[in-house]
Amino acid sequence: MAMEIGGKAVEKPIKDWRLLFLRMVSFLGTASATLVMAFSKETKTLVVATIGNTPISATITAKFQHNPAFVFFVIANAMASLHNLLMIMAEVLRDKFNDKGVYLVMVAILDMMTVGLASAGDGGATFMAMLGKKGNSHARWNKICDKFDRFCDRGGGALIASYVGLAFLLLITVLSIIKLLKHPKTTNTTFP
Amino acid sequence: MAMEIGGKAVEKPIKDWRLLFLRMVSFLGTASATLVMAFSKETKTLVVATIGNTPISATITAKFQHNPAFVFFVIANAMASLHNLLMIMAEVLRDKFNDKGVYLVMVAILDMMTVGLASAGDGGATFMAMLGKKGNSHARWNKICDKFDRFCDRGGGALIASYVGLAFLLLITVLSIIKLLKHPKTTNTTFP
Repeated sequence: MAMEIGGKAVEKPIKDWRLLFLRMVSFLGTASATLVMAFSKETKTLVVATIGNTPISATITAKFQHNPAFVFFVIANAMASLHNLLMIMAEVLRDKFNDKGVYLVMVAILDMMTVGLASAGDGGATFMAMLGKKGNSHARWNKICDKFDRFCDRGGGALIASYVGLAFLLLITVLSIIKLLKHPKTTNTTFP
Repeated sequence: MAMEIGGKAVEKPIKDWRLLFLRMVSFLGTASATLVMAFSKETKTLVVATIGNTPISATITAKFQHNPAFVFFVIANAMASLHNLLMIMAEVLRDKFNDKGVYLVMVAILDMMTVGLASAGDGGATFMAMLGKKGNSHARWNKICDKFDRFCDRGGGALIASYVGLAFLLLITVLSIIKLLKHPKTTNTTFP
C-alpha cells in the first residue's frame, strides 16, 4: 500500500470498502433493533371481573420503558449504531489523520468497548424476554407473552436484529485488531 | 526491546509483569464471582397456612440453577477465568512462540471476545438481580429478596466481583491492542 516515489514513502488513499460494508450492515442491525424495541408499545383491554352481566375491563399497556433491561438494550444499541456511524465517517475522512497508527488503535479500542456494551444490552434483554415468554415458576414470575403477543414478537425481532449487528461488529473488531499488525511503521515512535 | 547483535535482531525475553498482575486480579474477580454464585443456595421454611393452631410450613430453596441468567453468569465467568489462566500460562511460556505478531493478535482477539462474553453474563445477571430486589409491578413480578436475603446478598457480592474482573479485563484488552502497534516488525510478511 506504500509506494516509493522519489525516495519518499507516499500512502495511497485506498478506502477499505469491505470494512465499510460490514460496518453498514452492523449499523443497520443495531439501528433497527433500537427502533423496533423503542416503538414496541402494545395496549390491551382485558376483562378483569364480571358484576352481574356487566364485564369490568382494564386497559394495560406493555412498553419497553417498563423494564430496565429493555431501556438499557435501547441505549446500548443506539450507542453501537452511533459508534458505527462515526467510524464510517472517520474511515471516509481518514486521509486527514497524520498518525495512522494511533487512529487504528483508537478504532480497535472503541470497537472492543462497543462489543462489550452491546453484549451487555443483549444479555439483559435476552433473559428478560425469556422470562416474559416462559415465566419462572421458582420465583412465581408468570409469563406475560400470552397476553402481549405482539409486544413479545416485536421484542424478539429487535433481539435478532441486535444479534446480527453484534455479530458483524465482532467480525469488524477482529479485522480492526488484525489491521494493527499489518500497519506499516512509517514513523518509528517506539524505537527512536 | 529489540537488540542489534552482530547485525541480527534478538528479542530480549522480558516478561510483562504488569500485565501478569492485572490478569491475576481479573482472574481472582471472575473466579470468585463464579464460585460465590455457584454456592449461593438458600433454603427457607415458610409458614404458608394455619389449620386451627397447627402452622403448615413449606420449604423453598433458592439457587442459581433456577434462573437461566444466573446459569449463564456462572458459565461466562468460569470461561473468563479459564481464559485469564490460559493467557497467564501463555505469557510465561511465550518465548516458545516463533511468530510474536500472530501471538499478540490472537491474545487481543481472545481478550476482546472474553470481554463480550463476560459483559453479556453480567448484563443478564444484573437485570435479573434487580428484578429479584425490586420486582416489576407492570409485569406483576414480585421481589423475592425480602424472603431470600442471604441468597440476594451473595448474588450481589458475585456481581461486584464479576464487575471488578471485567473492568480489569477491559484494561488488559486495551493494553493488548496498544501492544500490537508497538510490536517490532522483525518479519515483513506484508511487504515481501
